[in-house]
Amino acid sequence: MEMRDHPQDIAEIWQRLVTPDGGKIVYLILDGLGGLADRQRGGTELQVANTPNLDDLAGESSCGLLEIVGPGVTPGSGPGHLALFGYDPLRYMIGRGILSALGIDFDLQEGGIAARVNFATLDQQGIVTDRRAGRIPTEKNKSLAKRIREEVSLEFEGEYFFETVSEHRAVLILRGMELSRKVEDTDPQHTGVPPRDPMPRSSSAKKTAQLIRRFLDQVADVLKEESPANGILLRGFDQYQAFPSLQERFALQGVCLADYPMYRGLSRLLGLAVPPPPGGLRQRVECLRQEVKNSHDFYFLHVKHTDSRGEDGDFDAKVKAIEEVDALIPLIRASEPDVLVVTADHSTPAVMGRHSWHPVPVLIHAQTARRDKVNRFDEEACLHGALGIRPGHHLMGLALAHAGRLQKFGA
Amino acid sequence: MEMRDHPQDIAEIWQRLVTPDGGKIVYLILDGLGGLADRQRGGTELQVANTPNLDDLAGESSCGLLEIVGPGVTPGSGPGHLALFGYDPLRYMIGRGILSALGIDFDLQEGGIAARVNFATLDQQGIVTDRRAGRIPTEKNKSLAKRIREEVSLEFEGEYFFETVSEHRAVLILRGMELSRKVEDTDPQHTGVPPRDPMPRSSSAKKTAQLIRRFLDQVADVLKEESPANGILLRGFDQYQAFPSLQERFALQGVCLADYPMYRGLSRLLGLAVPPPPGGLRQRVECLRQEVKNSHDFYFLHVKHTDSRGEDGDFDAKVKAIEEVDALIPLIRASEPDVLVVTADHSTPAVMGRHSWHPVPVLIHAQTARRDKVNRFDEEACLHGALGIRPGHHLMGLALAHAGRLQKFGA
Repeated sequence: MEMRDHPQDIAEIWQRLVTPDGGKIVYLILDGLGGLADRQRGGTELQVANTPNLDDLAGESSCGLLEIVGPGVTPGSGPGHLALFGYDPLRYMIGRGILSALGIDFDLQEGGIAARVNFATLDQQGIVTDRRAGRIPTEKNKSLAKRIREEVSLEFEGEYFFETVSEHRAVLILRGMELSRKVEDTDPQHTGVPPRDPMPRSSSAKKTAQLIRRFLDQVADVLKEESPANGILLRGFDQYQAFPSLQERFALQGVCLADYPMYRGLSRLLGLAVPPPPGGLRQRVECLRQEVKNSHDFYFLHVKHTDSRGEDGDFDAKVKAIEEVDALIPLIRASEPDVLVVTADHSTPAVMGRHSWHPVPVLIHAQTARRDKVNRFDEEACLHGALGIRPGHHLMGLALAHAGRLQKFGA
Repeated sequence: MEMRDHPQDIAEIWQRLVTPDGGKIVYLILDGLGGLADRQRGGTELQVANTPNLDDLAGESSCGLLEIVGPGVTPGSGPGHLALFGYDPLRYMIGRGILSALGIDFDLQEGGIAARVNFATLDQQGIVTDRRAGRIPTEKNKSLAKRIREEVSLEFEGEYFFETVSEHRAVLILRGMELSRKVEDTDPQHTGVPPRDPMPRSSSAKKTAQLIRRFLDQVADVLKEESPANGILLRGFDQYQAFPSLQERFALQGVCLADYPMYRGLSRLLGLAVPPPPGGLRQRVECLRQEVKNSHDFYFLHVKHTDSRGEDGDFDAKVKAIEEVDALIPLIRASEPDVLVVTADHSTPAVMGRHSWHPVPVLIHAQTARRDKVNRFDEEACLHGALGIRPGHHLMGLALAHAGRLQKFGA
């Protein structure tokens, strides 16, 4: 027996067993797909939607449910996708500042610091009266960000970036030597008090904290005549560290076919190729068809609308978004990947209007997929599938195995 | 990426995400509920019982099975309940001495030492001839315990307590400074040999071991004319350390509605309020109805009889105990908790007459519960439920999520 070097995580075993050759894997991720029943409509979004192509595919696949992060845990999109890519989201955490930077498709570099920014309203005594500055329009945000970039001059061994996200949200990035993430939020999290000082949480962060204070002093000067966005609040300082890539971990050359910045940024973080987005979903699916013939091993095809309509609380629109994807399934199948996975990064039930913890349906279509009796792709039918209910980060190991990319474990 | 501070346990994630506001959670725990089929009666206790109310409730809930501690592991009541409360019983262990003290509803204090006591029979040479002193009646035990308390005088910086449990069982508690639990059992675990010496297992335990030796010498003197209980055996020394409370971990203000001492003691250990027991089950259910209107978040309603009748090996009586609970379900539902959980801390199949490792049925009733096709609350029907089979300590995360008490994980 060997207890030495025993792995913390099943993914470490896949890493040991993986081979660089094997079949092509396509992930079709319908963001926020999982739902809950709307009583009046008689089922979940997937149950109400007319999905003949997904149902046929389910009939030829192994089906199941993924509990993406863990019981009761509602995944953000970042952890949700990490799980699907085989990164246990409890071990691989991304700070919110970093996610914001990823979300604007910003090219982060090792050691860089990022923080989330809110434009805010302060009264004459410097008290926060609105943490979101009345949700200023994105265009206003852009013009303020431009002024800050032009007028704030920070002298240090590095550079800073101040980028608009949307509405009142922006991101501050510091690039340079010896920066530390251990700086307290200046966002007090409620109104009626002044912004906090950017205090260092350890002595190694003193320099970074001073730098941020100098930045804030100059920003205050730039914004002092503005209304309602006459201040900024910072929170979620985090330092970017390179992730081990899909190539390093699972010997996969991947490519991202997503159009939303956040998913493109996350793909870049994991070392996937991120070509310019070719346009709408149909264009991306056609792109997939051409791509599968070339040298990539792993294709990440992302659909955002299912989540957006769920977040809108618009049941019927989410049903329609699902049906639009269903119509493209034949085109996706025509690209003939060796392994086709259809699943989601989390549930976004329209009846809740937000992300939720409920497990998501999954299907794996492959020559070696053990068929089950499931011939409807929905939350209830998949409960009785060959894959059972399992953690989200199990998916990658199954996809690798079905692609013939994992060697035998032991003799 | 953060590999730093990554959690060992999903419950640490719940702790990070939990909010102090949210819905009310009621746990109805039917101790030892899970069963096995009796061939002649044509099913398990739950299957044979007439349970229209539990079945209706199951029809409106997410159902499943909980494997309380782990595969093949038969839970004691302590670990069984810890699991349900979100304390992974492999990480949070309570020594048996401590459980005995909890079992008599004793107010343990940080640092106190407890050991289980058996009254035993010794022959003239001091050899153990019966480790249970013929299972003396509890009343006899009480009178001997009283004499010991009156006649044994231990001079040290602290105090001792010697308390009857039942029959031949008692508990010894030492309260004071610098006590150590590292003392060997004096119970030799079989007859034909003398009791062992209370040997220290480390140098820090020498003082405690000497104290216990002095105690045993005096007890020997008190009991020397007694028959059959002319000696005592000690085992399972353990030191009480405060557990992180439900409040600290999950921001839950809890209240215990149990009448058995062990469950009340465990609740006290976890920081639940433990009001005087209001009487029988119906009184406790009525108490629940009044309580849910007040400020508590979490209600632990415990039913002992299902387990007791299982341990008696009395299938029909366990069926009857289940039916008695079923009749109270409408009253429990009338209290309108946001989340109602019905489950058990372990199985106690009447055909086995003892605790077992078999998974127990569980239902979660809440607005956000994903319905399944299960409309019978029993071991077989729940197998096809939306929750699948999962570890017992997952339950608390699900309950918190359904109560709207967990924030999103990551952005």
